Amino acid sequence: MRIALDAMGGDFAPEPNITGAIAALQADPALNVVLVGPQDQIDSQIEASGYCGDRLSVAHATQVVGMEEKPTDAMRQKPDSSISICWKMMAAREVDAVVSAGNTGAVVASGLKTRLFLKDVKRPGIAVTLPTIAGHAVLMDVGANPSARPSHLYQYAIMGEIYAREVLGVEVPKIGLINIGSEDGKGNDLYRDTYRLLSEGPLKDNFVGNVEGRGLYQGEADVLICEGFVGNVVLKVSEGMADFLMQEASKQILGSLDTERDQAKRAFMDMGKRYRYHETGGAPLLGIDGICIICHGSSDAQSISNALKGSATFKDRGINSQIAEHLAQKPVA
Amino acid sequence: MRIALDAMGGDFAPEPNITGAIAALQADPALNVVLVGPQDQIDSQIEASGYCGDRLSVAHATQVVGMEEKPTDAMRQKPDSSISICWKMMAAREVDAVVSAGNTGAVVASGLKTRLFLKDVKRPGIAVTLPTIAGHAVLMDVGANPSARPSHLYQYAIMGEIYAREVLGVEVPKIGLINIGSEDGKGNDLYRDTYRLLSEGPLKDNFVGNVEGRGLYQGEADVLICEGFVGNVVLKVSEGMADFLMQEASKQILGSLDTERDQAKRAFMDMGKRYRYHETGGAPLLGIDGICIICHGSSDAQSISNALKGSATFKDRGINSQIAEHLAQKPVA
Repeated sequence: MRIALDAMGGDFAPEPNITGAIAALQADPALNVVLVGPQDQIDSQIEASGYCGDRLSVAHATQVVGMEEKPTDAMRQKPDSSISICWKMMAAREVDAVVSAGNTGAVVASGLKTRLFLKDVKRPGIAVTLPTIAGHAVLMDVGANPSARPSHLYQYAIMGEIYAREVLGVEVPKIGLINIGSEDGKGNDLYRDTYRLLSEGPLKDNFVGNVEGRGLYQGEADVLICEGFVGNVVLKVSEGMADFLMQEASKQILGSLDTERDQAKRAFMDMGKRYRYHETGGAPLLGIDGICIICHGSSDAQSISNALKGSATFKDRGINSQIAEHLAQKPVA
Repeated sequence: MRIALDAMGGDFAPEPNITGAIAALQADPALNVVLVGPQDQIDSQIEASGYCGDRLSVAHATQVVGMEEKPTDAMRQKPDSSISICWKMMAAREVDAVVSAGNTGAVVASGLKTRLFLKDVKRPGIAVTLPTIAGHAVLMDVGANPSARPSHLYQYAIMGEIYAREVLGVEVPKIGLINIGSEDGKGNDLYRDTYRLLSEGPLKDNFVGNVEGRGLYQGEADVLICEGFVGNVVLKVSEGMADFLMQEASKQILGSLDTERDQAKRAFMDMGKRYRYHETGGAPLLGIDGICIICHGSSDAQSISNALKGSATFKDRGINSQIAEHLAQKPVA
């Protein structure tokens, strides 16, 4: 398997990308990684790392999209960015997957521009895995598609279900629709129509109905469907709330302790680490004919390495062929 | 000041409502509370409490709306519910305020049906106060209006600004628009059009632009505007995430301790208490010609008492007349 890794993506690039790539190559002998970025800079960093295997190569890109840059501007002004080159390589079938911790909007926009969609997929969406009381849940879409229709959300349920089954290992994933109340008929037209598709179509046995914001973290469903605006807000509010609360908790709790403060501090750090993206394998852009894994901007080497290994799992489990097969056999709407 | 309190609202009703009412009456000699619910049941509870002042009375209601009941069904089937009677009393100007910890959807639907709107207000909205790193922020709307237009969101900014100034005591409240990116042009038409109204209209000096989910808890703005679906999800995801994280943190951190476990446990309990609704004075439905304070279903007596006192503050600060004045003098859209 061959992966294009956006060497310049992320808040601390390129260092964690190069270190993470080397770690993944050492863990998986079937992997090849192409680091995409300014050749000279990447070459000297690889040399400095002491790595000299032949499964790591470099594809030159003269431009870099900033983390805060407006995606539409970046795409117009930087046709030779590391993100663009990654996607061009996937479109040309030179790689099986694209992994980037760069500007999410630019990664998505650049990918959608290739129109490299799986057959019958209307709109790709980003599926993120969140921790819950019950273990984990997949939330989709978290921002790839800001103007979703019921048929798009329905397809997210198909894709999310397959992803949860194959990657999270949930035998029969429960599908929930994010909504502002649990009763049927809640929300606006988009959610009411999606509810109908889910409760009447081929996924009806997996559908557990509307799930409120609280229910997400209580593990009421394994796959939670919503449109990109709502999903993005859910994701970022969760991050913000978690940071705020962990900060407050460590201040208050550590302040209450005397002799055992160091032990508690270590427990807080362990916990913080566990609930960060660093441990997970990134979020796939599902619906693409190929593999695209989006990593958090703050990804460290461990996180990048996990995302590279995650791409291999994605391929091995045949997620794309399962999605295409479902859409061909059980079309809805 | 005279307040109708839905005696039957909340998960633990009527006990916390009666105890909370008595506490508020003892704290504020200018207050009168009308407990709305089944006369016999309320009378015997008041008698059991030992309270015999004449500022507490009962208004009989034969029906009770369940916490999980569908609001539209409840309104049709239960015209004599405690919630309906509260609103009828406000419409008849027999009370200045309605306070309820009951079914939020039913409280809002019943209130909107009275059409008891402040002059020029298009749609009332619920403003909830959330803790942030910087102190507090007002989020509006969290679910009263599921089909908001830019002009509605603009009015929420006006109402939220006045509320934050008068109740939270922020001298010049910063207004932010919840969005999926910080740049101008982000989101869908609703948010782009609202952005334009906020950045060009009379509130432009207070407007700090788009605020992402993370920014909410980092205190980037004092007043955060969004439509009801998004606001409701933000609120409930925050609650769910906070419960989940506090549960995990107390398990992990207490598990790491030996001799100082009890101290840490107390610190966790103090913190949990501080960040619950119990301490705040409930969430006003702003835009009503009258006062309506919605309390969390899990409200205890302290929380109900705070909401009753909050209603008095709301009246004393002349929030409604300030809203009406602003709308009359600086209409937009």
